[in-house]
Amino acid sequence: MDGITLSDLAKQTGATLHGDGTVRITAVASLIEASEGEITFLANKIHRAALAETSATAVIISADDLATCPTNALVSDNPHLTYAKVADLLFPFPAYKGGIHPTATVDKSADIAPTAWIGPGAIVGAEVEIGPDAYIGPGTVIEPNCFIGKACRLIARVTLCRGTRLGQRVQINPGAVLGSDGFGFAKDGSQWVKVPQLGIVEVGDDVEIGANVAIDRGAIGNTVIGDRVKLDNLIHMAHNVEIGDDTAIAGCVGFAGSTKVGKGCTMGGMCSINGHLEIGDNVHFTGRSMVLRSYKEAGVYSGGLPAMPNADWLKAVAHLKRIETLSRRVGELEKRLKDDSEQK
Amino acid sequence: MDGITLSDLAKQTGATLHGDGTVRITAVASLIEASEGEITFLANKIHRAALAETSATAVIISADDLATCPTNALVSDNPHLTYAKVADLLFPFPAYKGGIHPTATVDKSADIAPTAWIGPGAIVGAEVEIGPDAYIGPGTVIEPNCFIGKACRLIARVTLCRGTRLGQRVQINPGAVLGSDGFGFAKDGSQWVKVPQLGIVEVGDDVEIGANVAIDRGAIGNTVIGDRVKLDNLIHMAHNVEIGDDTAIAGCVGFAGSTKVGKGCTMGGMCSINGHLEIGDNVHFTGRSMVLRSYKEAGVYSGGLPAMPNADWLKAVAHLKRIETLSRRVGELEKRLKDDSEQK
Amino acid sequence: MDGITLSDLAKQTGATLHGDGTVRITAVASLIEASEGEITFLANKIHRAALAETSATAVIISADDLATCPTNALVSDNPHLTYAKVADLLFPFPAYKGGIHPTATVDKSADIAPTAWIGPGAIVGAEVEIGPDAYIGPGTVIEPNCFIGKACRLIARVTLCRGTRLGQRVQINPGAVLGSDGFGFAKDGSQWVKVPQLGIVEVGDDVEIGANVAIDRGAIGNTVIGDRVKLDNLIHMAHNVEIGDDTAIAGCVGFAGSTKVGKGCTMGGMCSINGHLEIGDNVHFTGRSMVLRSYKEAGVYSGGLPAMPNADWLKAVAHLKRIETLSRRVGELEKRLKDDSEQK
Repeated sequence: MDGITLSDLAKQTGATLHGDGTVRITAVASLIEASEGEITFLANKIHRAALAETSATAVIISADDLATCPTNALVSDNPHLTYAKVADLLFPFPAYKGGIHPTATVDKSADIAPTAWIGPGAIVGAEVEIGPDAYIGPGTVIEPNCFIGKACRLIARVTLCRGTRLGQRVQINPGAVLGSDGFGFAKDGSQWVKVPQLGIVEVGDDVEIGANVAIDRGAIGNTVIGDRVKLDNLIHMAHNVEIGDDTAIAGCVGFAGSTKVGKGCTMGGMCSINGHLEIGDNVHFTGRSMVLRSYKEAGVYSGGLPAMPNADWLKAVAHLKRIETLSRRVGELEKRLKDDSEQK
Repeated sequence: MDGITLSDLAKQTGATLHGDGTVRITAVASLIEASEGEITFLANKIHRAALAETSATAVIISADDLATCPTNALVSDNPHLTYAKVADLLFPFPAYKGGIHPTATVDKSADIAPTAWIGPGAIVGAEVEIGPDAYIGPGTVIEPNCFIGKACRLIARVTLCRGTRLGQRVQINPGAVLGSDGFGFAKDGSQWVKVPQLGIVEVGDDVEIGANVAIDRGAIGNTVIGDRVKLDNLIHMAHNVEIGDDTAIAGCVGFAGSTKVGKGCTMGGMCSINGHLEIGDNVHFTGRSMVLRSYKEAGVYSGGLPAMPNADWLKAVAHLKRIETLSRRVGELEKRLKDDSEQK
Repeated sequence: MDGITLSDLAKQTGATLHGDGTVRITAVASLIEASEGEITFLANKIHRAALAETSATAVIISADDLATCPTNALVSDNPHLTYAKVADLLFPFPAYKGGIHPTATVDKSADIAPTAWIGPGAIVGAEVEIGPDAYIGPGTVIEPNCFIGKACRLIARVTLCRGTRLGQRVQINPGAVLGSDGFGFAKDGSQWVKVPQLGIVEVGDDVEIGANVAIDRGAIGNTVIGDRVKLDNLIHMAHNVEIGDDTAIAGCVGFAGSTKVGKGCTMGGMCSINGHLEIGDNVHFTGRSMVLRSYKEAGVYSGGLPAMPNADWLKAVAHLKRIETLSRRVGELEKRLKDDSEQK
């Protein structure tokens, strides 16, 4: 029979069941769209009004929403987390068996766990080690001397350059590149000469890396991604950046080289982080912050100018360009009034 | 014989022929560089002065430029559109026949139209459907359960993750990823826990998607790209974004999750669009706008600070940081003058 | 025996040896981390204090640091450049022999030098020419009619679209796409119609292109990258952009179409460059500059608002939105004081 009973979901996620535990849950949907057989959740109080209207078979809620819940419920202190567990039970990562697809190219010196799957068209270089239950998706390229821990998932068309090391349960989304040469050049007169990039990329456990991300290898020493770091799509990380555990970084963020970021930080989309900085633990940059200096103290920092109607923007830019003049004019007014009052 | 006669081009594009229709056109070039056998066009009036000097065999122009045209002409109300048609006649997408390259890996459950081409090294998963005349370029990965409509062109090294659905005549440029997991994590104490991403990406008809774009699948429900949407390179689109018909988005734009964009909008390069917003129809953001709130009304909106000489910029930034103080000083001056005048 | 003697390194790089030339160098490391058998360098005077503490077997320094150097030294006018040469001697690009991997797909009309290497899963189209000593890495796609000069290195999973031309010794990092269709559409009423993109991408000698970069082919005429240009990761370059020799561009920079950049320029990360501009020689944009007009004069230009504590930022943004009012208030104060003084 399809799906999982609500009482089983409660048991397996540690949530408290209210209502009929025998109903079978086969899918998830939003509060508004959920219908027969579907489970949904209420985590953001903004959506509270929709709870009374839901047609879901079950809802994951916190205890204080139970009174207004019109249907079966799983109650938990953290509905979003319980939802994550429920969704994972209902829709686990597609099953795969260990083995090597006949179209994969695997160097004979590679050491691949029998329970690891090497997908079609994947290319695995010399001296690579791949741990148990790893999933190496189609079209992935793993250069020599890489190490891939237990249960990593390289979804498709990932590139790991020479020597890249992944911990356990790392998910890398399609198109991501780890270990590309950093942007290291020495000046020879007016010309740039390539500086060989000799470090590697080291990734901790339970990391997720987004689509088309590019993380450069270290120039000397390594680029290091801590445990449980989450990187969204299209992030650029230059050589020798270090990211602390549990830090989450949104899409399109760019890092110059050698910056160290602490633990538990967050960065909104399209932040740009200068090189050779130190960012402390629990520092939060909202979207589009330009980070030009170290921020060692925990806190929320921001930059970026919100959009406005074009006509207003044109004026604001024009005035901003003259802001020094404006400041001087105010200074002159102050001086004049002071002189006037002294004359009295 | 090479090329197409000017009268044939006129007939097939609906333009009006002026001059010698028997000349053969074999190539296109700019007004300034065009020579014997080449056709060019004048769409932007800025380039009008170059018309009299052109050595092209033919020019596509509007009627009001005919008087100063020194050579054969195709006259049309919309020379840029007529040029697009002419260029397409002269240089159609390279011909291909239906079939599967011997190095492609196609699951036996995939349903592929006999007129579709599956290129070398392409990988097509289980239960995939590919429509007539589709072109699946080299190194492309199509995960299970995708649907690809008639005459789609996936140029090379594209990735479509599980369940992605494309309409008809969609062109996807190399390196683009559709259907990667969205950035969805629940907090468990200080740690992030992955929330399974269960929606798909749905793409309408006549869409073009740029190189190395990343479009995430929906978390719950789908990410939706409307008909005739045009996406430039390196765009990041998070889960559950919806883009209305005929909207065009320039390179490097980033979208946070669940934002809905209307029809006929444009966004300049490197805009960043916050999550959970509603953007109306015919809203235009110029380049680098940071969009933090919903804009439901049609209009042009802007953000971003244009570059200036470094010394001026340093001063402007310093003054801007003190702008609150400046404002307070002005307030004090106003108060003082008011007090003075009341004393009189 | 492993490594290279210090006297050999001196000879081959033109540096002056101080100390024991018979020591063997096997690795590189930073000043602080280097130990037995390792060489390091001091190029940035900020790190001078660390020199006295280093445990390296040798250090590359300039003559004025020789007095405080606690170990063997290679002295050079340009330690960074000498380091680049030393690193290249110690860790040359991994050796490869000419040949075609059995899993590569090479069109029979392609002309491949016997000393070129075509890696596993690479796909080489019709009429492609590949020069001596070229390295075509795994999973790379080369469409028909491309030209690849001597000793180019396409690391892995690179895409060259139809007709792309590379000079000699060009390195392209994984995921980069050259020659994708530019963002060219004509308006037909409210709809966008694709304009065929008929130019190519031309790349000079000794260019390096970063991971997941996207460079569009020309619309009419070509997109041109000069000699020794260095492009970092995730750069977007639209159709018909031209970049002058020796220009270096950091990560995440985006270019709109047809802009011409001079020689010897630099651009910091995440700059955005408008279309149809002319940037002169030796123009330098610091990170995040929004370039809306031509800058023909050499110099340093900047934009971007550095991050600040969130509370300060909220105030600064609010005041900036009212900057026109502030300016008017100052004008009124000035007028009033003028009137007052005239009345006296």
